[in-house]
Amino acid sequence: MQDYGIGLLGWGTVGGGILDILSQEGGHLSRRSGFDFNLHRIVTANPDRKRDQDQMGAELSSSIDDMVNDDRVQCVLHMVGGTDVAKDMAIACLEAGKHVVTANKALLAEHWDELFEVAATNQTCLAFEAAVAGGIPAILGLRDGLIANRIQGVKGILNGTCNYILTQMEERGLSYDDALGQAQELGYAEADPTLDVDGTDTAHKLAILARIAYNGRINFDDIAIEGIQAITAGDIASAKRMGARIKLLGVADRQEKGLELHVAPTLVPIEHELAAVRMNYNAVLIDGHAAGPNLQVGQGAGALPTASAVLSDLVSIASGAYGKISGHFGYFHTTKKVPLLAEADERTGSYGRFNVKDEPGVLAAITNTLSEFNINILSVNQEVFAKDNRATVEVITHPSMTGDFLKAIEKIDGFDFTVEPTVILRRMFEKA
Amino acid sequence: MQDYGIGLLGWGTVGGGILDILSQEGGHLSRRSGFDFNLHRIVTANPDRKRDQDQMGAELSSSIDDMVNDDRVQCVLHMVGGTDVAKDMAIACLEAGKHVVTANKALLAEHWDELFEVAATNQTCLAFEAAVAGGIPAILGLRDGLIANRIQGVKGILNGTCNYILTQMEERGLSYDDALGQAQELGYAEADPTLDVDGTDTAHKLAILARIAYNGRINFDDIAIEGIQAITAGDIASAKRMGARIKLLGVADRQEKGLELHVAPTLVPIEHELAAVRMNYNAVLIDGHAAGPNLQVGQGAGALPTASAVLSDLVSIASGAYGKISGHFGYFHTTKKVPLLAEADERTGSYGRFNVKDEPGVLAAITNTLSEFNINILSVNQEVFAKDNRATVEVITHPSMTGDFLKAIEKIDGFDFTVEPTVILRRMFEKA
Repeated sequence: MQDYGIGLLGWGTVGGGILDILSQEGGHLSRRSGFDFNLHRIVTANPDRKRDQDQMGAELSSSIDDMVNDDRVQCVLHMVGGTDVAKDMAIACLEAGKHVVTANKALLAEHWDELFEVAATNQTCLAFEAAVAGGIPAILGLRDGLIANRIQGVKGILNGTCNYILTQMEERGLSYDDALGQAQELGYAEADPTLDVDGTDTAHKLAILARIAYNGRINFDDIAIEGIQAITAGDIASAKRMGARIKLLGVADRQEKGLELHVAPTLVPIEHELAAVRMNYNAVLIDGHAAGPNLQVGQGAGALPTASAVLSDLVSIASGAYGKISGHFGYFHTTKKVPLLAEADERTGSYGRFNVKDEPGVLAAITNTLSEFNINILSVNQEVFAKDNRATVEVITHPSMTGDFLKAIEKIDGFDFTVEPTVILRRMFEKA
Repeated sequence: MQDYGIGLLGWGTVGGGILDILSQEGGHLSRRSGFDFNLHRIVTANPDRKRDQDQMGAELSSSIDDMVNDDRVQCVLHMVGGTDVAKDMAIACLEAGKHVVTANKALLAEHWDELFEVAATNQTCLAFEAAVAGGIPAILGLRDGLIANRIQGVKGILNGTCNYILTQMEERGLSYDDALGQAQELGYAEADPTLDVDGTDTAHKLAILARIAYNGRINFDDIAIEGIQAITAGDIASAKRMGARIKLLGVADRQEKGLELHVAPTLVPIEHELAAVRMNYNAVLIDGHAAGPNLQVGQGAGALPTASAVLSDLVSIASGAYGKISGHFGYFHTTKKVPLLAEADERTGSYGRFNVKDEPGVLAAITNTLSEFNINILSVNQEVFAKDNRATVEVITHPSMTGDFLKAIEKIDGFDFTVEPTVILRRMFEKA
């Protein structure tokens, strides 16, 4: 058994989960890994806060310098949120020759190149399994397990808060606000859920997955992001009627003209495996040219699942395995940019809900306009509201160019019979 | 870029898949792994067979000695079936100081201790991702990704042939024989499917997963194995009526008195994620104390999926990462035996289909007998066949001791009103 010194930077939820596993299952981890992990130091913004957790004999303070200058600490478990102070702290540790394991997806998505350059310069490892889909070893599977594959596509349900909200809206008929409130009560959603529900968190994780899948630079700002805030009970009901569920998907898909890369609420056909991922669960679906479709489902967040991922990185670093692996990977410090597909050139199935006057010729005008822009209709559903003489026409299309679809919608929204802007959603389909 | 010499032992389906990836995606693999893999030698039983595949400049012969004596070969891709010659060949390569990657599950399940002792003695690696669930990186996830977890249970749909047959029987109403015939036409089943349909292949994979999950010796012969040969269209229909699907599951489950370890056709509730795994797909569901339930679904066999797994092991070995990892793992050469649970002590849900005379008091006698043995009934379904004055009574029980259930069945089968032996199946349930 070999001793290995570690430090914990940030004692919040995940930090607490790490302490739980080390204190309760440390023996188990040692037997499996061959290492006795000694927690020498904890640095946290509020060292004096009363905690019901033992600090395992670690020295406790609030200054990053204490961590940086502690020669016993070989690897820092960096459990700090945000992208400013968190970045400075990570860099300080790497420059001090310490390996870093982080769960901070925003930090990686927005400052990847700088961070990995510092790591390379200082011959240190920066690991991040916990940054994507918490307890699911998705980075490991994609990076190592599927290394012999040309990755065609990566699709993910990467935010448990959104998936919980959408599941509750569908299964219990809750409004968006009620479902969000419930997610907050259960601790699935932050007090300020903005970054979750607006799709930013999903995009951060997608950027990391895409880096690894496509072995090049992904500029986070290039990702088209839609959140779920605008999804209504009506949308959910429509989806159900059309044999689908609405999921917030992060999608990276290799197409001829470039990489399709976006985050958007998407109609997932009810029979598709991603439609079955409920509540706060996450899922990552990777399509490799050799392995075929590979689905992983599990807990995407929470103290213990995230800590499980952090400690798997720690073992990989301590054993030297991670260094052997990461040293080889171009995407850690590549300068190659992955060419992205323009949204107009995306080929996707679409859903449109047209809010129109109930009068003759409307359905014909809609279907004619769609065919005028080469859009094939998969199914149509019309509902008439006699009392105010209005109707909704729902259309699901075969895969078509997003640009064409948007032009058709624009034209239809210009017709006199259109009483409200058309509601549109993407629809997932499996390429032939 | 670093050169790395490899040899291919056995040029069958998987060997062909490996050649396909190396010849078509070799550049991709090099960029990702940092290695140029040079195939120096192929040894196969029939080197003269006409093949439509290029041998990539490798020397081709039929003698294992040629491989063993080829100093350029650092790692041998061991794609040989069986457990006799295949074992001698693997040992010869390991003793020659060559690392070995194998896809042979039977070999590992039945000769694990001997093989890993040879590997340890010779400071060589023996890797086997491809031996379990083909294209799914299940070994990697369990061994490394979930290393910080105490594993509560491992459940798997581990044989694509059986899953394809059961799916066809359910979805298209085929008989067992017709479904099997179709699986053979499609190449999902061997000409002699015995080891697939009788559960042996699933048990081989379960033995390997259990070794890693529970970090100790698993004696293959201790695994209770039932196959799917006896499953009838009637059983499938009954399952459907009871809101379940029949899946051949390999189950390892940590219980108080020991490890539950068996392979059996099992009623899986329709809403459970494993019930959704169709056709020839495999699935591995691992329950970790920290990460929670982790599901992986993908292609369990076939040339390219299996080759994908083999090459991921190769990269791990070439980089030195695998050695760093495997060196630490007790289960590679542990002498600790994992205590198993006696079948009678298993606590499981059960299904019984009683074939009885249609006369007063029968249902009462059945239900009384079950309660006499402390078995709680979850649901009952009776069907009467007026013409021959017979009835079937189907019962699904809450979890109870298997021993009690079997005693109750024995007693019921002794009653005069029982006209045919009772059909029984296990039923999966999630522990509270």
